[in-house]
Amino acid sequence: MTTSELMEQFSASIGYDKRLYDQDIRGSIAHARMLSAKGILSEAEFTQIRDGLNEIRREIENNQFEWSTSLEDIHMNIEAKLTERIGEVGKKLHTGRSRNDQVATDIRLYLREQLDQLGVELTALQLELVTLAAQEAETIMPGYTHMQSAQPVTFGHHLLAWNQMLERDHDRFQECRRRLNHCPLGAAALAGTSYPIDPLMTAHELGFDGVCRNSLDAVSDRDFLIEFNAHAALMMIHLSRMSEELILWSSDAFGFVDLGEAFCTGSSIMPQKKNPDVAELTRGKCGRVSGNLMTLLMLMKGQPLSYNRDNQEDKEPLFDTLQTVSVCLQVFSAMLPGIRVHRDTMFATALKGYATATDLADYLVKKGLAFRDAHEVVGQIVRYAMDQEQPLTELALTTLRQFSDRIESDVYDILTLSGSVTARNHVGGTAPQQVRREVARAKKILTARGTKAG
Amino acid sequence: MTTSELMEQFSASIGYDKRLYDQDIRGSIAHARMLSAKGILSEAEFTQIRDGLNEIRREIENNQFEWSTSLEDIHMNIEAKLTERIGEVGKKLHTGRSRNDQVATDIRLYLREQLDQLGVELTALQLELVTLAAQEAETIMPGYTHMQSAQPVTFGHHLLAWNQMLERDHDRFQECRRRLNHCPLGAAALAGTSYPIDPLMTAHELGFDGVCRNSLDAVSDRDFLIEFNAHAALMMIHLSRMSEELILWSSDAFGFVDLGEAFCTGSSIMPQKKNPDVAELTRGKCGRVSGNLMTLLMLMKGQPLSYNRDNQEDKEPLFDTLQTVSVCLQVFSAMLPGIRVHRDTMFATALKGYATATDLADYLVKKGLAFRDAHEVVGQIVRYAMDQEQPLTELALTTLRQFSDRIESDVYDILTLSGSVTARNHVGGTAPQQVRREVARAKKILTARGTKAG
Amino acid sequence: MTTSELMEQFSASIGYDKRLYDQDIRGSIAHARMLSAKGILSEAEFTQIRDGLNEIRREIENNQFEWSTSLEDIHMNIEAKLTERIGEVGKKLHTGRSRNDQVATDIRLYLREQLDQLGVELTALQLELVTLAAQEAETIMPGYTHMQSAQPVTFGHHLLAWNQMLERDHDRFQECRRRLNHCPLGAAALAGTSYPIDPLMTAHELGFDGVCRNSLDAVSDRDFLIEFNAHAALMMIHLSRMSEELILWSSDAFGFVDLGEAFCTGSSIMPQKKNPDVAELTRGKCGRVSGNLMTLLMLMKGQPLSYNRDNQEDKEPLFDTLQTVSVCLQVFSAMLPGIRVHRDTMFATALKGYATATDLADYLVKKGLAFRDAHEVVGQIVRYAMDQEQPLTELALTTLRQFSDRIESDVYDILTLSGSVTARNHVGGTAPQQVRREVARAKKILTARGTKAG
Amino acid sequence: MTTSELMEQFSASIGYDKRLYDQDIRGSIAHARMLSAKGILSEAEFTQIRDGLNEIRREIENNQFEWSTSLEDIHMNIEAKLTERIGEVGKKLHTGRSRNDQVATDIRLYLREQLDQLGVELTALQLELVTLAAQEAETIMPGYTHMQSAQPVTFGHHLLAWNQMLERDHDRFQECRRRLNHCPLGAAALAGTSYPIDPLMTAHELGFDGVCRNSLDAVSDRDFLIEFNAHAALMMIHLSRMSEELILWSSDAFGFVDLGEAFCTGSSIMPQKKNPDVAELTRGKCGRVSGNLMTLLMLMKGQPLSYNRDNQEDKEPLFDTLQTVSVCLQVFSAMLPGIRVHRDTMFATALKGYATATDLADYLVKKGLAFRDAHEVVGQIVRYAMDQEQPLTELALTTLRQFSDRIESDVYDILTLSGSVTARNHVGGTAPQQVRREVARAKKILTARGTKAG
Repeated sequence: MTTSELMEQFSASIGYDKRLYDQDIRGSIAHARMLSAKGILSEAEFTQIRDGLNEIRREIENNQFEWSTSLEDIHMNIEAKLTERIGEVGKKLHTGRSRNDQVATDIRLYLREQLDQLGVELTALQLELVTLAAQEAETIMPGYTHMQSAQPVTFGHHLLAWNQMLERDHDRFQECRRRLNHCPLGAAALAGTSYPIDPLMTAHELGFDGVCRNSLDAVSDRDFLIEFNAHAALMMIHLSRMSEELILWSSDAFGFVDLGEAFCTGSSIMPQKKNPDVAELTRGKCGRVSGNLMTLLMLMKGQPLSYNRDNQEDKEPLFDTLQTVSVCLQVFSAMLPGIRVHRDTMFATALKGYATATDLADYLVKKGLAFRDAHEVVGQIVRYAMDQEQPLTELALTTLRQFSDRIESDVYDILTLSGSVTARNHVGGTAPQQVRREVARAKKILTARGTKAG
Repeated sequence: MTTSELMEQFSASIGYDKRLYDQDIRGSIAHARMLSAKGILSEAEFTQIRDGLNEIRREIENNQFEWSTSLEDIHMNIEAKLTERIGEVGKKLHTGRSRNDQVATDIRLYLREQLDQLGVELTALQLELVTLAAQEAETIMPGYTHMQSAQPVTFGHHLLAWNQMLERDHDRFQECRRRLNHCPLGAAALAGTSYPIDPLMTAHELGFDGVCRNSLDAVSDRDFLIEFNAHAALMMIHLSRMSEELILWSSDAFGFVDLGEAFCTGSSIMPQKKNPDVAELTRGKCGRVSGNLMTLLMLMKGQPLSYNRDNQEDKEPLFDTLQTVSVCLQVFSAMLPGIRVHRDTMFATALKGYATATDLADYLVKKGLAFRDAHEVVGQIVRYAMDQEQPLTELALTTLRQFSDRIESDVYDILTLSGSVTARNHVGGTAPQQVRREVARAKKILTARGTKAG
Repeated sequence: MTTSELMEQFSASIGYDKRLYDQDIRGSIAHARMLSAKGILSEAEFTQIRDGLNEIRREIENNQFEWSTSLEDIHMNIEAKLTERIGEVGKKLHTGRSRNDQVATDIRLYLREQLDQLGVELTALQLELVTLAAQEAETIMPGYTHMQSAQPVTFGHHLLAWNQMLERDHDRFQECRRRLNHCPLGAAALAGTSYPIDPLMTAHELGFDGVCRNSLDAVSDRDFLIEFNAHAALMMIHLSRMSEELILWSSDAFGFVDLGEAFCTGSSIMPQKKNPDVAELTRGKCGRVSGNLMTLLMLMKGQPLSYNRDNQEDKEPLFDTLQTVSVCLQVFSAMLPGIRVHRDTMFATALKGYATATDLADYLVKKGLAFRDAHEVVGQIVRYAMDQEQPLTELALTTLRQFSDRIESDVYDILTLSGSVTARNHVGGTAPQQVRREVARAKKILTARGTKAG
Repeated sequence: MTTSELMEQFSASIGYDKRLYDQDIRGSIAHARMLSAKGILSEAEFTQIRDGLNEIRREIENNQFEWSTSLEDIHMNIEAKLTERIGEVGKKLHTGRSRNDQVATDIRLYLREQLDQLGVELTALQLELVTLAAQEAETIMPGYTHMQSAQPVTFGHHLLAWNQMLERDHDRFQECRRRLNHCPLGAAALAGTSYPIDPLMTAHELGFDGVCRNSLDAVSDRDFLIEFNAHAALMMIHLSRMSEELILWSSDAFGFVDLGEAFCTGSSIMPQKKNPDVAELTRGKCGRVSGNLMTLLMLMKGQPLSYNRDNQEDKEPLFDTLQTVSVCLQVFSAMLPGIRVHRDTMFATALKGYATATDLADYLVKKGLAFRDAHEVVGQIVRYAMDQEQPLTELALTTLRQFSDRIESDVYDILTLSGSVTARNHVGGTAPQQVRREVARAKKILTARGTKAG
């Protein structure tokens, strides 16, 4: 390889940054429009530039554009083509601008649009969750702590826990969007420009809420990428937890759900096997998004202001993260409606393990025992029941009363699974009534949002 | 070591979680107050519990409390002592509560208070920056891209770039605070409780904006820690960039600033040496905060709901991050006012390197040349000046006109450093006037905030 | 806080680096001995210094040493005390040395000794694994892929898989030890020294294999810390995988093992619950070691040579990692012998799920069918058996022959679980005979090593 | 998008794993050869398979192969094509094998070959360093601690510090290669196979040193990827440190080197500017390799044995790391020979800053002063010289003797830069003689290695 080939391979970014073509063109048109409004370009020059750029966009979208690696990046590819097409006027487009503020603008526009798209995909997944939660509001399953069955919960309640996680993710993405939505144009190379530009006009033209208030910061800031990637990493942690549970639940050992053939792979030889590929791959992909976050943090560590070429390395992790989280959200949304819930197995499993022992303790407290003492008594009863290999509900009242004479016949109501879940009927509790209330509340929020996003 | 000693060393958290004592006690008092309001405890029982807990707080604060490792954590240490002190009633405190929602509440309270403290410390540092920026609004220094001198900027403008970074950090911390400010109490172990509790009352008592809406999520969610740590990691990236610049600027090679003896270490043998310790250590500490972020992300990856013992590992990285960012903010605040700025060196350095070449190009554009053509011409002029070893301002008009006859005698105004910075007089630009305007704007924001925080 | 208090809190390292006292003293004695051998110190001076340092060691070990934060670090604390004690001669100890090569030496010595200790602890755990594997060489359990039961394996074989992972960890630690075992003394501040020192003599005195061959590298290199931490992070990944399996196996859903009361916490109210704390905490602690690795990588990124104060931040992550991996190895070693294996449950679970389908396919291939065709046929048989809700062993020969007339009565031998595992009798295979062979091989290696370490 | 399109996009790996085609084919041929040696395939069948696979390789290398996303991965693409081409016999290739051990084999082969290639590239870079070091053995530059000029060193010595770092990297890569060089074939899906295979024969056929000794481990182990990536991350830290120094040295502020036009980008408008792109991009790329390491660690965290689909996510970070480190090594090798060293500037800079103060102190110690006392005296002399704005060499003997009457006229020899570096003439020291000795030693090692690799 010659030196220049090697250098091209090493430093050209056109291979990945060409996906910014639309943002680059829109940014240039907005910039040119502002220049003409301020008299820096003539109206006619602006029209030529705009038409030339729109034509280039068409070519790109029709795959007729010839990309050049020696022109290195998306900005030079487009500008060179523009000048080739419209002549001298093309050379004026870059007036009062620099590649530094141009690329910062392109990425912000791109990420903003991707965030909007992610918002739609996330909302879609949340709606699936909430819909399933409504169906499973009364389904009883074991609730786990330490992977040990602890107390019965409703499956709908569990699904709403997932929705809570994703709701926070949505919230964070929105704030990231709001914070990044300031326009770097006008910062030029690093110091601003001596032309009488109107940065605010360009900003509004491009849908920004305002303008970056410091040129040095505008060209060197990549906070929004790191912040987005941090939020994405956290969302992937959530998906990894959901995945882990789906993998467990669909395993032979649990048998709680069936994930649907389209989302699993089988084995020609063992047709009963259904590998939970979507969940496994998502759990695995969680790593790369945290890895990308680390990439970006380390990238920016210790960089003096303002723009350094290191920053070119910001794009690949961004694109990879965006694509990863988007496709994960989509497959989860597609998979959820087809999940078959084995309610009987869930219920049967919840029956094991003395899951209502806590309810018995609460019963005793209500009858006057101190909390810690009630726990002692219940511990003895459970140990006895274990020795007898009987569930609590099968112990006779006389037997129970040997442990505490506060126990009366009404105890059997609270020892059942449904008694247990129904009793937890406060905000945040697992009672079916609470699940339905939360479903209604979430649906209202999600639907409103969906409309807005459309 | 016996097994139980080994296990104590392995699993006890009291060594580090005792710093949550105040939050734990306040959470318990609020919980007990709610229990008594709902008739679950009597008024007298509540009073006993409250007084007992307050007494324990006093003991702890006077270093009279005996911590027990075999009681494992802060919660059991306090509860055991309470029962020892007030007897049977102490055993009732845990009614309708579990260690799972209790610890979640403690950490949220703790982090919320620390965030408030960080907000104050961050604002203090920003005020120092802005104050220095006001003093240095007209100081000219070289602006760098790629560590190469590119265009003159004002030092005040550079300092305001730092302030912009920190302003975003403050914004993020505030949102993290808002998002975490929901009370997990009522979630109990994982499913809610069968007592007729009033979660909202407890929440408001503790200054929370609301209550966690899902019990499974409430006991397993550690989002707020990860989110906070992500924001802290980003803030440390900012401090690492500032540190890098201070290290460079105070080096022999630059000589732009003197950091003050109190913040450097010298050498007995080379009294002229001043090692920029604060900046170096801060740059180094940037690593540990990103490391803590990675710790927390990996901790939560793939955990099935709800509470798992893994989560105990959330505290040490949190405490370490909090302490690290707090002390870094404080030393930076203390160091800034004592920085001596060598304005002459900055100016002299900016004079080198043809830093106003861009201004000359802009001049030509304004005289009618296309942007890219103007760059060509200026390139030739600079090359000529380099050969002559002369600055642009020393070239005779006739010489300049050999390259372009559009150049006239007014060119010398824009070739000076002060002409260059003054011309960049738009929002975000480096002109002294803009610096002063931004300083005023920032001061207003920071002062308002400071008042609120106090 | 005054500035100097703040700075002390910010920059003093004595709080954590005092654990290097023994290495620091031994390094100083070796250095002084070399100085006297080269005539730079007199024999008498050396004796005074050596005795003074040994006395200081005794004080430290008897907790009689008064540490001073204003003396910042372990080196200055000891040297100041030495001069206080032996007078003028103490001031000569630092001849031909600097804090930069001194601290580099201390950490290498410390890590080397810790690596030796870890080697012993790791070997102990491996011996426990191998011992258990010998006991469980014939125990049949389901082997999983994708968390789905796939083929029967022996439990001993599974335990040996764990041993393989740890064996590689041991291998890596040994190489790290070999690579770090070069002495930085002589590098002085950064350039070497003008005294006629004998670096090799000091190196051998301290048990180093050689001397660092470049002074700039010697004082700035922290590779060994990063390398060690990378190996430790990988080992913790291994322990996290083992932990995950122990958590699953000890859960209600699996019921394969019982981890022993000493290593679990129960619940007063649910005596049947045994939370697998050791496994959960170890899984959680896996995060912090990866976090520490990230801390160290980011710490060193982009540092120009030679020594920078940033490097002081290398110690806390090192100490934290060392302590974490050591205690995890110890608790695992303590826990393993007490694990109760529920062989019946393992066997019964393996019986489900048509785990010998692969054996049937292999059987058909041996009878002449092509591999992929055999898979087709077996798939049909399994599907049929599933419909009939029968295990393969219960299908009549005539039934089986309807799918392929190559099947004969000898088929039943290979359809049993024990037939399946016994058949996999090659190096690496799961057959009991292989397990015993590997156990013997591993024991030999581990015992030899153990002797060497003692 | 239909579900199956979505799933294909989500789970197919052929887009990136097709680069394993050669390893996959060679692995298959070796496996088939062993099967025929053991009588499991006939000689004729083996020939057909081998020829078919070789033909497929040719097609792939001539870009005539049609990849199918619905066949998901490289293994199925090749096997399906083989059966299409040679018919029934193709279906026998997979006898005694599974995709799990097949993919593990492919990656090990691939990484082994890439490691060999990296070894060559790394050696080439080291040779360039050593060659440059030989040329610059006597060049004096300032040696830095804390970015402050501390003592004079030779530039050759500094370059050899870089070589030491890379030498350790080479060492680590070699050990990783040795450790991974065991063949997983025979492990089949997870338990081994019931065919009478000869795993060692296949292993040797493929150049492995041995066979994986545990089937469960063989299919689930990805240690070698993590280990390689950890070593690569550390090597990139080294390159980032070298990059940082090149960026500094080529900046206006230092002016020590000129990196050559081919490896910098200029500015049309400021022809004097040379942005050190290679160094900046390499410094930036350091982040992604650490990020990939984090990706892989998190990927494996908590995975139960044996193979899970998560593992498919191991390839993209591996490929990205391999490509990144390879191209960085290549550009550095290409850039080094063209670096122009400004020896005068280096020397002039070293002259500033009283860099020989340490030598003066050593001089006094040799004349009988205690080390710490000598430092005191020299501190006073330097302070005096600073006040006089004179270098130490310009102070009159009488002046010097006012500070210590031990100073005599021979002092001027050691106060020069060349006196200082020449005096540090021990292993590891900066003296030109040591540099030449180390260069000779390194050249011998590197040349021997190069021959072996070629």
